[in-house]
Amino acid sequence: MKFLLTNDDGIEAEGLKTMAKALSEIGDVTVVAPETEMSAVGHSITIADPLRVRRVFRHKTLFGTAVNGTPADCVKIAIKAIMKQPPDMVISGINHGQNVATNIIYSGTVSAATEGMILGIPSVAISLSSFVSKDFSVAADYGLRVIRKAHSHGMPADTLLNVNVPTVPSNEIKGIKICRNGVSKFKEVFERRVDPRQNDYYWQGGQMEMSGKDDDADIYWLQKNWVTVTPIRFDLTDHDFLQRMKEWSFK
Amino acid sequence: MKFLLTNDDGIEAEGLKTMAKALSEIGDVTVVAPETEMSAVGHSITIADPLRVRRVFRHKTLFGTAVNGTPADCVKIAIKAIMKQPPDMVISGINHGQNVATNIIYSGTVSAATEGMILGIPSVAISLSSFVSKDFSVAADYGLRVIRKAHSHGMPADTLLNVNVPTVPSNEIKGIKICRNGVSKFKEVFERRVDPRQNDYYWQGGQMEMSGKDDDADIYWLQKNWVTVTPIRFDLTDHDFLQRMKEWSFK
Repeated sequence: MKFLLTNDDGIEAEGLKTMAKALSEIGDVTVVAPETEMSAVGHSITIADPLRVRRVFRHKTLFGTAVNGTPADCVKIAIKAIMKQPPDMVISGINHGQNVATNIIYSGTVSAATEGMILGIPSVAISLSSFVSKDFSVAADYGLRVIRKAHSHGMPADTLLNVNVPTVPSNEIKGIKICRNGVSKFKEVFERRVDPRQNDYYWQGGQMEMSGKDDDADIYWLQKNWVTVTPIRFDLTDHDFLQRMKEWSFK
Repeated sequence: MKFLLTNDDGIEAEGLKTMAKALSEIGDVTVVAPETEMSAVGHSITIADPLRVRRVFRHKTLFGTAVNGTPADCVKIAIKAIMKQPPDMVISGINHGQNVATNIIYSGTVSAATEGMILGIPSVAISLSSFVSKDFSVAADYGLRVIRKAHSHGMPADTLLNVNVPTVPSNEIKGIKICRNGVSKFKEVFERRVDPRQNDYYWQGGQMEMSGKDDDADIYWLQKNWVTVTPIRFDLTDHDFLQRMKEWSFK
């Protein structure tokens, strides 16, 4: 199998290296990843600036290509300009930090898999729940299991898989839960500060607030130490409301 | 009615000014928009850099607030830190250029309305199909008609409206079509060039390719000179595939 591997934490990120090593056990891996960290870029692409690519070596061996763009840029330029043939799968991660519930729309990690899906390639995003743990080996193992299974069963052309792995020792993981994407959201806080020149500025922060509706969703099971696998599809039309709107009169 | 108005073309954009004037006829308008153009930023937010806000005056009157962030940042900071009370509606636009079909996931204009919806406010994105026309008056008129109708009928809490207006004289517009979001996609082209220092770089470009599946969707009707109104909802789970995946065995 041929894999395209990318992420949003940048080409130097530990999660990317661990996943590259794991994937290389079952296929050929082409790494095309952002030059620098690109968290929370959502599905942005770079159209007003030129994109530059730089080959990155480790121990004198080509590790991959760094791009001064977003995760979605990386997938596009990899498939359309860098790789001679399209990959069999696009893998994004392993991200430092969970990507669950409504929050996935801000996620560069998920957006890379979304771009792979848009370009017609089966795609999987993989995230580790912790922002601090440096051990991605358990997440890589579970990622491989999901990738193998998705490859053998096949996936719909308009669907990607979003995998999240709890940050606990392997023997504390309860199993793999196939579940829906939750609706829980961030509760934003803007912290106002004053800079040394007496100008105001704001830091954007906040924390996830669990919604009562989410007891069968990714965010819930991840907290219960399950590996969550959620099939994501961008059918964005509200079909029910569409029918009701058709009765609106614009005369 | 109290409106929050934003866009992704920046606070100096003509489409924003035209919409601000139109909205001021039916309510109070608070403008909070990006300092500079933010096209194709998708649903990105700014978390690694501080956000700064600047009050912008026109003819000595406060026009609005410029933010050094994305459209989604503008909506968040407006509602959470700038406005004393939340608005009744969030309006995003009028964008220079259409936002239809799969392409809306790259759209800063739609992402601002998405953020409004996430924060619990009825939200409408408005775009003019042309990248070159400077006349936003027809789009503003149709935008107001949709806004009034949405306000009187009400909208589901998890749905936003995406409005696109063709760039033709008012009397050539066929009417308002309530329709679904299409699946047509951009066909990417990366143009390779060499800079004066002999380094390669790439420009990302491409054009929309009409999908045969889209003859009842926004992209189709817009081309036929209809104003399109599409209800957008981020229920991202592929529920059908979820059921099939539950039969996967991970033993």
